[in-house]
Amino acid sequence: MHLTDQEIAKASTMRPIREIAAKLGISEDDLRPYGKYVAKLPLKLIDKSKMEGKKLILVTAITPTAAGEGKTTASIGLTEGLNKIGVKAAVVLREPSLGPVFGMKGGAAGGGYSQVLPMESINLHFTGDFAAIEKAHNLLAALIDNHIHSQKNTLNIDPRKIIWKRVMDMNERVLRDVVIGLGGPAQGVPRESGFDITAASEVMATLCLSNDLMDLKEKMGNIIIGYTYQDEPVRAYQLKAQGAMAALMKHTIMPNLVQTIEGNPAILHGGPFANIAQGTNSIIATKMGLSLADYVVTEAGFASDLGGEKFLDLKCQYGNLKPDAVVIVATIRALKSHAGIPVADLKIPNPKAVIDGLPNLGKHIENIKHFMVVPVVAINKFATDSDEEIQAVFDFCQSLGVKAELSEGWEKGGEGTKELAQAVKEAAESGKSNFTPLYDFNWGIEQKIETIARKIYGAAEVEYSLKAKQQIKLFNKIGLDKLPVCIAKTQYSLSDDPKLINRPSGFTIKIREFDIAAGAGFIIPIAGTIMRMPGLPAKPAAENIDIDADGNITGLF
Amino acid sequence: MHLTDQEIAKASTMRPIREIAAKLGISEDDLRPYGKYVAKLPLKLIDKSKMEGKKLILVTAITPTAAGEGKTTASIGLTEGLNKIGVKAAVVLREPSLGPVFGMKGGAAGGGYSQVLPMESINLHFTGDFAAIEKAHNLLAALIDNHIHSQKNTLNIDPRKIIWKRVMDMNERVLRDVVIGLGGPAQGVPRESGFDITAASEVMATLCLSNDLMDLKEKMGNIIIGYTYQDEPVRAYQLKAQGAMAALMKHTIMPNLVQTIEGNPAILHGGPFANIAQGTNSIIATKMGLSLADYVVTEAGFASDLGGEKFLDLKCQYGNLKPDAVVIVATIRALKSHAGIPVADLKIPNPKAVIDGLPNLGKHIENIKHFMVVPVVAINKFATDSDEEIQAVFDFCQSLGVKAELSEGWEKGGEGTKELAQAVKEAAESGKSNFTPLYDFNWGIEQKIETIARKIYGAAEVEYSLKAKQQIKLFNKIGLDKLPVCIAKTQYSLSDDPKLINRPSGFTIKIREFDIAAGAGFIIPIAGTIMRMPGLPAKPAAENIDIDADGNITGLF
Repeated sequence: MHLTDQEIAKASTMRPIREIAAKLGISEDDLRPYGKYVAKLPLKLIDKSKMEGKKLILVTAITPTAAGEGKTTASIGLTEGLNKIGVKAAVVLREPSLGPVFGMKGGAAGGGYSQVLPMESINLHFTGDFAAIEKAHNLLAALIDNHIHSQKNTLNIDPRKIIWKRVMDMNERVLRDVVIGLGGPAQGVPRESGFDITAASEVMATLCLSNDLMDLKEKMGNIIIGYTYQDEPVRAYQLKAQGAMAALMKHTIMPNLVQTIEGNPAILHGGPFANIAQGTNSIIATKMGLSLADYVVTEAGFASDLGGEKFLDLKCQYGNLKPDAVVIVATIRALKSHAGIPVADLKIPNPKAVIDGLPNLGKHIENIKHFMVVPVVAINKFATDSDEEIQAVFDFCQSLGVKAELSEGWEKGGEGTKELAQAVKEAAESGKSNFTPLYDFNWGIEQKIETIARKIYGAAEVEYSLKAKQQIKLFNKIGLDKLPVCIAKTQYSLSDDPKLINRPSGFTIKIREFDIAAGAGFIIPIAGTIMRMPGLPAKPAAENIDIDADGNITGLF
Repeated sequence: MHLTDQEIAKASTMRPIREIAAKLGISEDDLRPYGKYVAKLPLKLIDKSKMEGKKLILVTAITPTAAGEGKTTASIGLTEGLNKIGVKAAVVLREPSLGPVFGMKGGAAGGGYSQVLPMESINLHFTGDFAAIEKAHNLLAALIDNHIHSQKNTLNIDPRKIIWKRVMDMNERVLRDVVIGLGGPAQGVPRESGFDITAASEVMATLCLSNDLMDLKEKMGNIIIGYTYQDEPVRAYQLKAQGAMAALMKHTIMPNLVQTIEGNPAILHGGPFANIAQGTNSIIATKMGLSLADYVVTEAGFASDLGGEKFLDLKCQYGNLKPDAVVIVATIRALKSHAGIPVADLKIPNPKAVIDGLPNLGKHIENIKHFMVVPVVAINKFATDSDEEIQAVFDFCQSLGVKAELSEGWEKGGEGTKELAQAVKEAAESGKSNFTPLYDFNWGIEQKIETIARKIYGAAEVEYSLKAKQQIKLFNKIGLDKLPVCIAKTQYSLSDDPKLINRPSGFTIKIREFDIAAGAGFIIPIAGTIMRMPGLPAKPAAENIDIDADGNITGLF
C-alpha cells in the first residue's frame, strides 16, 4: 500500500531548524524563527565572495502533461542524492500557493520520499509571504481608487485604462471580471476591474527579481498601474505607494529555510506564475543558497521553453547568475503522450510510442545547448514504466551525447538519485558549460521575441496583431523596449497551440497583445490565451481537508 | 519635544520573548516563536484550576470623541502600574487591523510610554492571524460560488440571498458593493456582493468566542451563508467548508505573547469589530491570561454601551468569565465635548463644561453597576487639562461613591498609574463585585433588546421596522431566537443618533433590520447605519510610511 505524501511527511522526524542552519554555517542568532522547523534568513548571508566556484543546477522538464512531470520532486530528490555522494547541496524552490491546495493540484512541497518539511505549514500560510505580497499589491489598488475618489484624481488617471487589478491567493473564477465602486457617490467611482491569483501579482514577480530591499522598493515604485486620459503611463511612486508596500515586505524579502526529509537544507522563496511571469524562486534565495552551500539545485516552471527560457534569460541576466548544468526531467508517460497516446493508455508499456515521443525531449536538449549549458536527462521513473521503454530513452540520449539517469527520489529518496547526482556533478564540474543568454536586453522588442520563437520554440515566424503592433510603438515611445520579454503561452506545446504536441515545426507564433510588468522589469507578449485566476474544480480538495482536536491535518496531498 | 510612539518604541529595549514567557511560568519549549520577540502560546496552557481566584479587569470608556479616549493605552499603563505595586498582571488585547494603519487612525498597540512591543511587527502582519482569518472566510465564499457554478447548485442556493461576502484587511470603499461573476458562462454566475474589512468577518467573531479548535470548527460549520429559494438557511457545513477553514486556523487559534515597554507580558489575540461584533479579544486569550497571571487587564471597544455591554453579556456568558472590576476611562476633552464644546475649543480650560458633561460619565458608571461590578474611573490626563477640571471629576465620582484616579501611563508608563493600580486592586479584592449578566440567552429576542436599550442606553422604547419584525419571525422559526444580541449602533451617543450627546433620555431605539452571525453565536439588531468596510482618507497614512535599507520603518504612528 502506498502512503500518501502527507503520511510520509508525518512519519518523518524533523530536526530543529537551527541544526539545518548549522549545516550551512548559519548561527542560531541569525535565524528569524517561525515555529521550531522554519526560519527566515537575513539578507546579510548573501556574500558574493562565497559564491565563487559554487555550482548552480537548474531543473527543467520536457513539455508536460496536465499532471506535471515531477520537477519539484526531482529537484528535492537530486539534492538528497548529491548530499549522499558527499556534495554539500541545498535545494532552492518556490513557495506553494493556496489556490491549488484547495483546488485540484494539491501542495507544492514535493512528493513521496522527496519532500520538504514541515509539509503542512509550507502548504498552508507558511511564513505569510503570500499574504504580505497580497497586501502590498492590494494597498496599491486601494490607493489608486482612493486617489480617484478622495484626491479628486489630480493625476488624471483614466479609470477605463487602469491595468492594476487586485489579487487573492484563492481559485476564484467569479472574481476574474467584476464591477467595483457601485452603490452611489460615497462608494467611489464605478469601473470594471478584476482579481488575479496572488502568484500572478507583479509584486511577486518583482520580489523574485530584486537584489535587495531598496531595489525592491524602487522597482515597486516603477510599476505602471494604468494610463492618464492622455495615455501617459502612471506609476506607483506617483501615488506614494512604494514605501508602505516595501514596509509590508520587510520580512517577506527574507528567504525561508526548511528541510528535506533527509535533513538537508531547503530554501523556499516566492512563487511567481511561470506563464505570465518568470516562474521561479527569487534571485535573493538563489544567491543565498550559492553563498551557503556548494551546490544549489533549483527549478523553473513548466518546460525549457517557458520557465527554463525565462530563468536563463531574465533571472540569470538580472541576477548575474550562471548555471553549470541543467537537468531535464522526462517521464515515459509524457513521452508516450507526445506520440498521441491517450491518457487512459499511458500506463500500458509501448516502447514504440516512447521512441515516437522522443523528439520532444530532443528539442528541450537542443534548447539547453542554445544557452551553452550541459544538459543531463533525469527519467522520473514510475512503477508502470517498462525496461524497454526506459532503454529507449537511454539510447536516444546516448546518441546525442547527453547523459541520462533514472530519478527515483519519489520512491527511495536520496538512495534513488545517487547515479543522477553523480552525472550532474560530472556535468557541472566538466567545465563544458559556458552559459550565454539567448539575447541582450538592448535588442529591439521584435528581435527578442523572434529569437526565442525561432530558436527555442522552433517556430517559422512571428505574427503580431494590430493591437500588439500599436503597443510596440507605445513601448518604444515610453522607454519599455529595453526590457526583456516574458512570453505567455501554453505549457502543453512548444508552439502556442496546445494541440501541437511533440516537436512541431513550421508554425507561426501569434502575439495577440502585451501585458507589462514595468516594475518587475519585463514585458509580456501574449501568444494565445492566458489565465491569471484559476477556478475551483467540481470536487474541490478543500472539501476533504480536516483537522482534529490535536491539530492533525488530513486531506492535504 | 514629544517623541512619536514609533520613536519611543524604537528607543525601548526588548527582552527575548522566552524571558517574558518565563515570567508567566511558560517554558521555552512551549513557545511557537515568530522572530525573537513574539511567540504563539499552545492552548494547553489554559488551566481551569489555575484560573481560580484570579482577577479579571475590564477597561471600558465614556462615550468617546472621534479620536478615542485611550483605552488601549490605559489598559497597558494600568498593567505596568499593577506590576509596579507588586501584582503579577498581564494585559490581554486585540490585534490591530491594517485598515487603520494605512488609513487615518494609525496602529493599535497603545501610545506614548504605554505600548506593546515590537510595535512595527504588531501593526504590520504580526503572526498572520488576520491573513489566516481572511483566507478561511474567503475560502467559504469561493466554495459558495463554485458550488453554484461547478456543482450545479444542488443545494438550491438563491444567489440573490447569499449574505456571506468576502473580506480584505484594507480600507476599500470601492469594494463595498460589487458585481462578481461577469464575463460569460466560464466565469461563474453573476450576482451582487461585496467585501467587508477582515475585522468584520464572522470568522473573526467566531474565533474570539470559541473555547478550542473543535468548538471553532463546529461554530464555523454553523455559519449561515444565505438562503435557498425556499428561504431555508444554508450553512457552511453543507458546503463541507469547516474542515479546511479550521485547518487554515491551526496556528491562528493560538494567542500571541508580546511585551509591554516595561517588560510585562501582553497577550494579543483576534480583533473583531465593536459595532457589529463583540469588539474584544478572544475567550481563549483571556482564559490563558487568567491561567498564567494573577491579574488580567483587558479592554472592549468603544464605551460601556457597546463593547462593554457585549463583553459582559456575550463574552462573559459564552466564556464563563466574571470580571472583578471595571475601569471606565474618561478624558476632560470628551466630557467637555458632551457639554457641546466644539473640537477646536476642547483644549481651553472650562471647568463648567466638564461639570455639564459629567452626566455621560454618570451613565457609564450606572451601567457597570447594572452588572453588579465595581467601577473605577481612570482620568486619562492630557497636558492641557486644568487642575480645576480634574477636581470636578474627582468630586463627581466621590459623590457617587466611586473611586477615581489619574491615568498617566502615556507620559510616565507604570510610574503614572500606580495610584490607579492600587484603586483597581482594592476594588477587585473588595469582594463587592458579584458579576451578573443583564439577560439570559433564553429570553425572547425583543426582551433581550429592550432590556439593553432601557437599562444601558437609557431609551424610552424600541421600535422595529416591518423588515425587522419579519426577521424576528424567521429567527423564531429557524431557532436563532436563543442567541444573544449584539446591537449595532453609533459609538458617539448612548442612543442610536450620534447627535444626542451626553446623557440623552426619552429617545426611541429604532431597529431597522438584523444581521446574523449564527456560527459565532449571536444576532445583530441594527440601529442606524453601520459600516463594515471603511475607506481611506484624502491623505492616507500609507503615503508617509517608508522603510530604509536597514529595515527601519518610519511613518507608523
